[in-house]
Amino acid sequence: MADLNRRLVAEVLGTAILVATVVGSGIMADRLTDDVALALLGNTLPTGAILVVLITILGPISGAHFNPAVTMVFALRREIEMNVALLYVIAQVVGGILGSLLAHAMFELPIVQVSETVRTGSGQWVAEAVAAFGLVFTILAGLRFKSDAIPWLVGLYITAAYWFTASTSFANPAVAIARAFSNTFAGIRPLDLPGFIVAELLGALLAMWLAGWLLAEPKLAAQEIKSKLKAAE
Amino acid sequence: MADLNRRLVAEVLGTAILVATVVGSGIMADRLTDDVALALLGNTLPTGAILVVLITILGPISGAHFNPAVTMVFALRREIEMNVALLYVIAQVVGGILGSLLAHAMFELPIVQVSETVRTGSGQWVAEAVAAFGLVFTILAGLRFKSDAIPWLVGLYITAAYWFTASTSFANPAVAIARAFSNTFAGIRPLDLPGFIVAELLGALLAMWLAGWLLAEPKLAAQEIKSKLKAAE
Amino acid sequence: MADLNRRLVAEVLGTAILVATVVGSGIMADRLTDDVALALLGNTLPTGAILVVLITILGPISGAHFNPAVTMVFALRREIEMNVALLYVIAQVVGGILGSLLAHAMFELPIVQVSETVRTGSGQWVAEAVAAFGLVFTILAGLRFKSDAIPWLVGLYITAAYWFTASTSFANPAVAIARAFSNTFAGIRPLDLPGFIVAELLGALLAMWLAGWLLAEPKLAAQEIKSKLKAAE
Amino acid sequence: MADLNRRLVAEVLGTAILVATVVGSGIMADRLTDDVALALLGNTLPTGAILVVLITILGPISGAHFNPAVTMVFALRREIEMNVALLYVIAQVVGGILGSLLAHAMFELPIVQVSETVRTGSGQWVAEAVAAFGLVFTILAGLRFKSDAIPWLVGLYITAAYWFTASTSFANPAVAIARAFSNTFAGIRPLDLPGFIVAELLGALLAMWLAGWLLAEPKLAAQEIKSKLKAAE
Repeated sequence: MADLNRRLVAEVLGTAILVATVVGSGIMADRLTDDVALALLGNTLPTGAILVVLITILGPISGAHFNPAVTMVFALRREIEMNVALLYVIAQVVGGILGSLLAHAMFELPIVQVSETVRTGSGQWVAEAVAAFGLVFTILAGLRFKSDAIPWLVGLYITAAYWFTASTSFANPAVAIARAFSNTFAGIRPLDLPGFIVAELLGALLAMWLAGWLLAEPKLAAQEIKSKLKAAE
Repeated sequence: MADLNRRLVAEVLGTAILVATVVGSGIMADRLTDDVALALLGNTLPTGAILVVLITILGPISGAHFNPAVTMVFALRREIEMNVALLYVIAQVVGGILGSLLAHAMFELPIVQVSETVRTGSGQWVAEAVAAFGLVFTILAGLRFKSDAIPWLVGLYITAAYWFTASTSFANPAVAIARAFSNTFAGIRPLDLPGFIVAELLGALLAMWLAGWLLAEPKLAAQEIKSKLKAAE
Repeated sequence: MADLNRRLVAEVLGTAILVATVVGSGIMADRLTDDVALALLGNTLPTGAILVVLITILGPISGAHFNPAVTMVFALRREIEMNVALLYVIAQVVGGILGSLLAHAMFELPIVQVSETVRTGSGQWVAEAVAAFGLVFTILAGLRFKSDAIPWLVGLYITAAYWFTASTSFANPAVAIARAFSNTFAGIRPLDLPGFIVAELLGALLAMWLAGWLLAEPKLAAQEIKSKLKAAE
Repeated sequence: MADLNRRLVAEVLGTAILVATVVGSGIMADRLTDDVALALLGNTLPTGAILVVLITILGPISGAHFNPAVTMVFALRREIEMNVALLYVIAQVVGGILGSLLAHAMFELPIVQVSETVRTGSGQWVAEAVAAFGLVFTILAGLRFKSDAIPWLVGLYITAAYWFTASTSFANPAVAIARAFSNTFAGIRPLDLPGFIVAELLGALLAMWLAGWLLAEPKLAAQEIKSKLKAAE
């Protein structure tokens, strides 16, 4: 891990490039085709690809969270200090918004926009909870069993989740906020943010809870049983 | 390997996410385009991607079978106990059905459905036998030569098999049963299940038989010859 | 390496599955869409994916040539005996034809067919020479620098070559012959085989020649210079 | 590293195959479909795939720059001598132009062409600066943290950048010059080259500057602080 300044800059930079990719590829795809499945494909492949890159190159600096739901889980697991976690979240939101603005600059659109795309309803909320559950569980299981594969696991998971969740898997409150600043293919109406963010945080907490049991190390489990036996004596 | 409870939960969870991906991405793709090749592409990429993820993160817990044909082969090779194998199969079928229901919930469709998609005939059965043959042979050869590549090998094999088999490669009795519960792009009429399942099990057995000879370790082969020579003396 | 029987069966099996994938995915894609670019994509992804799988799982048995141009190069480099090389080529041609027949069986088409697709002219021949040059150079450089990456290098190279060569990169005489037996998307008129095969072999020889110089080990190069100096004394 | 002749031939060969892929797949895609998003996809996948291959197989010989912006950064970092760097750039430009001509030969088009495709304006320039910034930062961070992943990181980065930058991410002055010699899908009007090249070099310099701080080794940072303390005493 680098010092705090470098870590925060890495979170800003990573989230900015991630959102620039999500929003920019959405604009590109939407401009080039009328087929929405093809547009989603043109949105999916760049997002999955850039995640592999960003997590590989910035992970050694900041851990490459780029996502307040992920930072929250690490804070609750006491793997990052609470005050650092708050700075991470601020960095992620700032970075995400910068990413939206950068995408607009590249495509010569008004720099500041507000999305009008409606994304609400029980199906969308279930989808976001599932999306964030899968993302956080993938990260925690990856850390437990094969940490050098995490960039690929996250990139591939999001590639799948763009298609199997009804919401196209935002799965990230900072990215959701940033997408509210873009009235393009990838946008979301600000009014619909709270539902998405709550669902994402609940999904992340559910994954953390399940991982706490399912991924427990056998040794730890054995020790737990032994200490219970001792306590019972 | 974890304890039995954790193993069974991993099989339920993995098969559920696998089926939610197959069914969910089928619904998403089918909604967004009229081009069936594009819909199949939107079904293929998420399925291949999620298989790499699920086998990597759940393999260390349960072996990541998610497939009764695979569990049957390991049981016949005495690499899993028969009573555990039966519990695995039940977990896979339950997980698969839950995955279909979850996909429907995300896309706000009736939760319980029965498929009306006809999938029958000699071409389909040959295709399912080929699909399961290739899957099981890939797994057994992967275990023999490069076990840490198995998540990728299975994900890439299914990516190919979705297109080169006439049946789009179900290759998995639990997934086939779960898809009978979804009257969407990925569905299969319950009446057509027996033909698919029999073909899949036969393909899996054929792969096990061929692998038993083709992948025999040179040392073992030599020992076998020596013991035959001794017996002949 | 396994014994000769196993090696030949591996060459038959691998080439059969490779051709079944090329021909089968071509039929599938052609049936599902009118857009030829989309059909080529539905042909490309499965071919690239199955190559990674087949070379990984059969490479340790036979070297996973599946291609007479590759076998010729290894024979000329004296890395495989000439009589074994001839048996390899026969196995590859037989396996390839079986792969075409299997694809037809799965898609309920007449099992034996003869292609009527015209593929001829200087552009096609240059393209096949380039395709085979790139394939053989990739394999030789992979063996020299990073042999465990060869399955991925070949799969990715063919993924690219399907699109950047005007001939969609057959790059393989056995696969070309097998494709002459299929009057579908991936077919080639028997009359056009000689031009393709000659171009492929010339491209392979060119790659072997360039690799002999470009990939020479520094130590060898140094020794060569020293021995020349000695000879000059 | 090989001797200088081999290094220069590797730069010519690699840049030629890279440009033949970019231009050739653009021609292929453009011929097969009217959907521009699909054409871009048929241009993206081969480019990303061939980059992984070329960097893996030629990296050990020349470093696999294939890009004057990359060579410039290594020269400024004193990791390559200035006169060698100039030869590299010449090799890259020559190789790139040969790649365009080769693509035309394969597709039976006039061998020498001049592009008429307009690519200019502030959005395009910002996009090219962003594209080159990301590419160079990815390479420098990859070298710092995970050098054996660089072929994949570059291939995936370009896959993403084709879609998220408004210019489809040329990110390479030699490739830009070569594409001016092709009046096809991937072309660029010679008049627009200076804007692209200046933007690419500025983006590369920005990445070099940021990487110099963000990727500084902790030990170095600590030494820097200590020496400042000493100087302050």
